[in-house]
Amino acid sequence: MLIALVLGLSVLALVVAWSLRGYVLRQDNGTPDMRKISDAIQEGAEAFLRRQYRTIGTLSIALGVLIYVLYAFFRKPHPGEPVAATLALTTTLSFLFGALCSGVAGIVGMYVAVRSNIRTASAARTSLNKALQIALRGGAVSGLFVVAMSLFGVGILYTILDALHFEPTKIPLMIVGYGFGASFVALFAQLGGGIYTKAADVGADLVGKVEAGIPEDDPRNPAVIADLVGDNVGDCAGRGADLFESTAAENIGAMILGSGLALANPGVFTPVQVVGLMLFPLVARAFGLVASIVGVLLVKAREDEDPMHALNRGYMWTAVLAALGFAGGTYWLLNPPSHPDAWWHFALCGVIGIATSIAFVYITQYYTEYRYRPVKSIAAASVTGPATNIIAGFAVALECTALPTFTISAAIIASYKLGASSGLAHSGLFGTAVATMGMLGTAAYILAMDTFGPITDNAGGIIEMSHQPEDIRKRTDRLDAVGNTTKALTKGYAIGSAALAAFLLFSAFLDEVAALGSPLAAVDISKPEVFVGGLLGAMLVFWFSALAISAVTKAAVSVIQEVRRQFQADPGILKGTSRPDYGRAVDIVTIGALKAMVAPGLLAVGMPIAVGLVFKVLFHVGAETVASFLMVGTIGGILMATLLNNGGGAWDNAKKFIETGEYGGKGSPTHKAAVVGDTVGDPFKDTAGPSLHVLIKLLSTVTLVLAPLFV
Amino acid sequence: MLIALVLGLSVLALVVAWSLRGYVLRQDNGTPDMRKISDAIQEGAEAFLRRQYRTIGTLSIALGVLIYVLYAFFRKPHPGEPVAATLALTTTLSFLFGALCSGVAGIVGMYVAVRSNIRTASAARTSLNKALQIALRGGAVSGLFVVAMSLFGVGILYTILDALHFEPTKIPLMIVGYGFGASFVALFAQLGGGIYTKAADVGADLVGKVEAGIPEDDPRNPAVIADLVGDNVGDCAGRGADLFESTAAENIGAMILGSGLALANPGVFTPVQVVGLMLFPLVARAFGLVASIVGVLLVKAREDEDPMHALNRGYMWTAVLAALGFAGGTYWLLNPPSHPDAWWHFALCGVIGIATSIAFVYITQYYTEYRYRPVKSIAAASVTGPATNIIAGFAVALECTALPTFTISAAIIASYKLGASSGLAHSGLFGTAVATMGMLGTAAYILAMDTFGPITDNAGGIIEMSHQPEDIRKRTDRLDAVGNTTKALTKGYAIGSAALAAFLLFSAFLDEVAALGSPLAAVDISKPEVFVGGLLGAMLVFWFSALAISAVTKAAVSVIQEVRRQFQADPGILKGTSRPDYGRAVDIVTIGALKAMVAPGLLAVGMPIAVGLVFKVLFHVGAETVASFLMVGTIGGILMATLLNNGGGAWDNAKKFIETGEYGGKGSPTHKAAVVGDTVGDPFKDTAGPSLHVLIKLLSTVTLVLAPLFV
Repeated sequence: MLIALVLGLSVLALVVAWSLRGYVLRQDNGTPDMRKISDAIQEGAEAFLRRQYRTIGTLSIALGVLIYVLYAFFRKPHPGEPVAATLALTTTLSFLFGALCSGVAGIVGMYVAVRSNIRTASAARTSLNKALQIALRGGAVSGLFVVAMSLFGVGILYTILDALHFEPTKIPLMIVGYGFGASFVALFAQLGGGIYTKAADVGADLVGKVEAGIPEDDPRNPAVIADLVGDNVGDCAGRGADLFESTAAENIGAMILGSGLALANPGVFTPVQVVGLMLFPLVARAFGLVASIVGVLLVKAREDEDPMHALNRGYMWTAVLAALGFAGGTYWLLNPPSHPDAWWHFALCGVIGIATSIAFVYITQYYTEYRYRPVKSIAAASVTGPATNIIAGFAVALECTALPTFTISAAIIASYKLGASSGLAHSGLFGTAVATMGMLGTAAYILAMDTFGPITDNAGGIIEMSHQPEDIRKRTDRLDAVGNTTKALTKGYAIGSAALAAFLLFSAFLDEVAALGSPLAAVDISKPEVFVGGLLGAMLVFWFSALAISAVTKAAVSVIQEVRRQFQADPGILKGTSRPDYGRAVDIVTIGALKAMVAPGLLAVGMPIAVGLVFKVLFHVGAETVASFLMVGTIGGILMATLLNNGGGAWDNAKKFIETGEYGGKGSPTHKAAVVGDTVGDPFKDTAGPSLHVLIKLLSTVTLVLAPLFV
Repeated sequence: MLIALVLGLSVLALVVAWSLRGYVLRQDNGTPDMRKISDAIQEGAEAFLRRQYRTIGTLSIALGVLIYVLYAFFRKPHPGEPVAATLALTTTLSFLFGALCSGVAGIVGMYVAVRSNIRTASAARTSLNKALQIALRGGAVSGLFVVAMSLFGVGILYTILDALHFEPTKIPLMIVGYGFGASFVALFAQLGGGIYTKAADVGADLVGKVEAGIPEDDPRNPAVIADLVGDNVGDCAGRGADLFESTAAENIGAMILGSGLALANPGVFTPVQVVGLMLFPLVARAFGLVASIVGVLLVKAREDEDPMHALNRGYMWTAVLAALGFAGGTYWLLNPPSHPDAWWHFALCGVIGIATSIAFVYITQYYTEYRYRPVKSIAAASVTGPATNIIAGFAVALECTALPTFTISAAIIASYKLGASSGLAHSGLFGTAVATMGMLGTAAYILAMDTFGPITDNAGGIIEMSHQPEDIRKRTDRLDAVGNTTKALTKGYAIGSAALAAFLLFSAFLDEVAALGSPLAAVDISKPEVFVGGLLGAMLVFWFSALAISAVTKAAVSVIQEVRRQFQADPGILKGTSRPDYGRAVDIVTIGALKAMVAPGLLAVGMPIAVGLVFKVLFHVGAETVASFLMVGTIGGILMATLLNNGGGAWDNAKKFIETGEYGGKGSPTHKAAVVGDTVGDPFKDTAGPSLHVLIKLLSTVTLVLAPLFV
């Protein structure tokens, strides 16, 4: 019954997403001039996605085979577990299914996003509100699709295995492959998209703005379409895959903890309640989906209003509704008669999660908006040149790790203590899990706001390139500025939820190790091997970031060379008499980005496996070392991702602050210095930072699935 | 008898240092023109040191009182421990004594360094070899003094307590205050010196080179003397305090482990052998001192030779002699008759340590010298402007954490396993301790090479400012280039030894906690509180770096304003007709740097205390959380310090590579872009990075001394 509710609500969300898609596609799609540009973006984005998913698909199938072999031949099933062949089959199939669902969600979201931009641009010619609504609803297609697909996938897998008469509490561990599939796709989607977007951006800027002296989004720049495509593949497809993974991994991790809680409290829950306990995460997510739908539909802006206020109102509605649904869900499902007080402990944990997400939104704003001290200090330091701009920006980037850390620390401990005081046995970690669910409750709305970013950015580009009047450009500029804020917020949210979800997945890993027959008494980092595991985990974060950032440079070089070549081959391009070959630039970035994503991707997947195997073979402490690798790596990842995301955002907005006329305004030497910081921040905030979110979760899911190797 | 040997050899080293001082002071001290400059540097450096040590002295006394109160009133002595009042007294006095010894070593080293520069400059007028020898021997005064004082201090404390009939194995824990005193002074010495040097450097460059267009080291720049002073207070006094602390903390930590080893193997060692076991670290260090003296005295360069080769030969002699002394020491002192194979296991651990130090030297060279790929890639990226220079440099900085991490990991595990297989019980950690001793065996020579850096840098400045002929300038330039390399190497070495020493101190902390009556079964980071402790520890590294870097900016702003003021007040300065007021610039940097060092310093000392107390009071897991804070903080510190040090060095040398004529050479746009990277790297490699070395060890010593608070 419960699972029917979950499946029903996720299908409802998919239907709503589909009808929003219809709503967007029915809108006016502009003049032929505008369509020409929009069509080029569509083609470019779809070509990239096709090639990218072909690469990812091949890699996924190869890994699927590996997983099957591993599970079928190397994992001895132990008492109470399904036979090896069954387990191998379910794990492999759920891995492939997770990869597939993630891919479908990404493709559908992108399909609509690249069609929403021109409709938003067209609507901007008459009304701000109309443009805002189209962009947000276009984004909501992606947001709803991603979250609903992740939920639907888990629900379907559960239904199938339940129908095959597996014991419900065993099911979560049988479908961990789903989360790993999602992580695996997300890693490459985010890496490839992130490299693409920044290689195109940096490449277009360096040749266009710096060498040829033409403005941004100028149609004479052969890389301009690639740049607009990049916003879609990075922010929309990449972040979509990221949050797909978060919700999928968190769903499964929380289900594992739920079944653990049931086992730790024998006799407290009836068999029906045990299923309710385990399905609670799915129900909570389904309620969150409904809350997000309502929130999105309520957004409406007055013509003279800051569009951000309208989006914030929608978010508040979503948060309040999600909290109510959450509290209802805990009262309904986490309420054993023998412990009448337990439910509200968990409800409060959910509130902690929602509060954490709001805190992250505000902290991110503080560090990345130019109304506040940090960004202002970077702008002020730009007066003495690019070097001081970089130093000040890096100092802000380092500093901005403090508040999020305190927030996460407080959230983890408070929810753990609240959970533990529920009266149930071993319920502390479940409290943390519930807080994570709370935090992810509004994921669909957040993702809609995120995809709003590239849609409005593209709308601005289309308006600019089709030479529309100044006042329309102003309207899209306002929306674009809001889009920049929402993109930054989503990253803060994504890293916060990744941190909480990772903590959940640690426990799932330890449970899995225990289920494999050799429980760890502790993850004791005072042991040399375990300490070294932690050191290696943290180092992976640094190394991975290095590879991600260099990948951008490498791919950007190929763009620069191509643009220079086109300018030389046909001088008419710069005069505006010939049309540059946009398609070739798009192709070149695509190939470059896909090639460049392989090295960091393999490092991320390979290093935890290598560490686990080496320490198992040499020192017989594979599992404990991997656990420490995972946990300290997560700590490093949280901090580095925050540094990179917020640092990049702060540099970007310091430049924008100067462009409002401060310190000499646009074109001044101060502005030039700030442009340097902005360019440096680009691969930080759009490639390495977001890829680290995914890395954190990938570390958890890869170790979870491959745990049998290390024990 | 053994302690007499230790004291005797350390006094010998002090005597040699004193006679080297005499040797340096007897040298020709140049023309009156040169003396005028050198005198100004001396005055500035000594004025800074005086004020700095006054501030540090006041802070130390305040902290000493606090320690006394804490030990006398809050720590319950437990069975076998001296009474509270005695323990309070020995801890407090050894804290103050450690602070004092560190101060004396710093002041003497600096006294000679600021007098060696002009003698080096003067000798450079006739012979490269002579100049090299003076600079290295001047540096050796500092190196020998620092290491000998740290050894002498521990030896004296041991002698006194032994004479007072305390049981030998209890003594190490009674003198941990000595290490904390050294760390405390080192933190402020390195922070203050690091902020001073870079504020003066960045300030002088930004107004001088960028605004007024005058070259580096130009006498018309009012901040030029402050810049030259900065090299001394940062590299000489700062790094001296850093390595003083390393050797002191390592001495005591290793003694604690030695006494633990004796207790774990009852009946294996005779009482005399127990003392030998405990004093082994001191004996090994004393042999290392002798090896360093020989190495320094052997250095001799042909006129046509790269001076680096001469220094490397001296280092190899030192390493070989230290290894021999080490092997002899293990055969003599770690050789219980019942375990005839034990000694060579430990001797090999020592070799691992020496090999690690050599590996660090080569890895640092690979990442910071322009003969290799990383620096070349930064230079190549500078062609497209400062933004790509910064991106490429940051990628190199992130990447360069990988090899040192693998090296440290291998060293920790190999020495642990070797130690554990010695046949003695619980001897694994002692193996790691022995490796640390091996690594620090050549500390005096390394420090001599380090101080060689500011001496030759200053000599170059004096030659430039006193308008000496071109070919003399070329000679000092060669020495200066070598000095840059040696400074970079020392940082690599310092971070490697800090990592090993920290691992030792963890164990000492756990021993101390156990001695306080509540041994920890594990430091289990899968517990939420302990995980959060680790997260906070790693975050401290980021936050502290942010404060250290901002401190440079703040202090630099005051320099810039002063230089501008002087240029405006007297236009004759820029024309070269009036002499700028160097003293005022020196004063302003001094005040600025001392003010700016307080915030990061207090954060470093305060945060571990706050974390320990909060987690003890709220959750009763003070000690375990602090342990995780310490260990994960150390991991973060190792990585971040490596990033900052090598990144800064790589940017610096990318600029130097371009100055050799590559990519358009000096003055080209590519060179300008590289100057931006160089300036950004300055506070990284000379302020934040080196301060992190100290932070790592301070975390260990502060928690060790204040452990009674957290249990």
